[in-house]
Amino acid sequence: MRIRPLEPRDRARILDIVTATGNFTPVEIATAMEVVDEALADPAGPRGDYRVFVAEDDQGRIAGYECHGPTPLTEGTYDLYWIAVDPACQGAGFGRALLQFCERDVRATDGRLLLIETSSQESYGDTIRFYEKSGYPLVARIKGFYRPGDDKLIFARELRTGESLVAAEPGPPPTGDEPAA
Amino acid sequence: MRIRPLEPRDRARILDIVTATGNFTPVEIATAMEVVDEALADPAGPRGDYRVFVAEDDQGRIAGYECHGPTPLTEGTYDLYWIAVDPACQGAGFGRALLQFCERDVRATDGRLLLIETSSQESYGDTIRFYEKSGYPLVARIKGFYRPGDDKLIFARELRTGESLVAAEPGPPPTGDEPAA
Repeated sequence: MRIRPLEPRDRARILDIVTATGNFTPVEIATAMEVVDEALADPAGPRGDYRVFVAEDDQGRIAGYECHGPTPLTEGTYDLYWIAVDPACQGAGFGRALLQFCERDVRATDGRLLLIETSSQESYGDTIRFYEKSGYPLVARIKGFYRPGDDKLIFARELRTGESLVAAEPGPPPTGDEPAA
Repeated sequence: MRIRPLEPRDRARILDIVTATGNFTPVEIATAMEVVDEALADPAGPRGDYRVFVAEDDQGRIAGYECHGPTPLTEGTYDLYWIAVDPACQGAGFGRALLQFCERDVRATDGRLLLIETSSQESYGDTIRFYEKSGYPLVARIKGFYRPGDDKLIFARELRTGESLVAAEPGPPPTGDEPAA
């Protein structure tokens, strides 16, 4: 497995992955791709507002990707905007590796707080368990945010500078490591 | 008092007001003005992503303004992004009138939930009391969001279609009607 910055040739594969998860509406898929396009167009690249990294398997094929960036108007807070793993590649640790990579990158740019927002829909159950097992407690719920009955959940983790990534992982590897949002 | 859509000639006065409140950092002021500029450039005008309205006093001078818009990726959720009243004009009900106008406008475009995010800093105390007295309970707190010790507070109000604005106001007019963010 290898994690590397986004390249223009990755776009079609990312669209395939986001679509294949089955978790996103057409509007959400379009938004995910807008963010990828903004990242590709940003001269700041992986130090820009949207920092996209892909995880390749041993054959060099992209199994998943993540996008994070500094939260506007904050000092040291970051958002994990998107993380998705191809359903055909789930269970092999790509989600976990992408999340750990994101945490390391946030720490490397003086980040101290990483937020993840997601939906309370049942289809996100595995995703929610993945975040909780990865050390992200639920810190807020906005009832009916997305639509009536569909809440926004906010997970957060404090990232202390110098904290060891290995030591910081609570307990054994999570079993539900297939994030889709 | 009169509330009307933003016009290009309002820009300088809005900058004065945002600066005069003393509640915003230079970066926040720049962001507020970026939003005003986006609203002015948007052909959708007051039906765009950023809907800016100003409150004039009886002499036609702008006493305050507000900016709201549909929250991306939601159905019927809106954000009140900015609301500010000139400190010299506070206590005369401009903040309350702007908030009620915003609620009416959100209802008119099938909005059902209005969110307001602000800082937990002590300088926002009057603002927080204003929201709570206006029917916006605190629904979430993200610790250390803006910077260590400075939390993000999220207030929310459900806006039911056909709800009377007058009946919906809980109790007597709020005394702290001087929002600055």
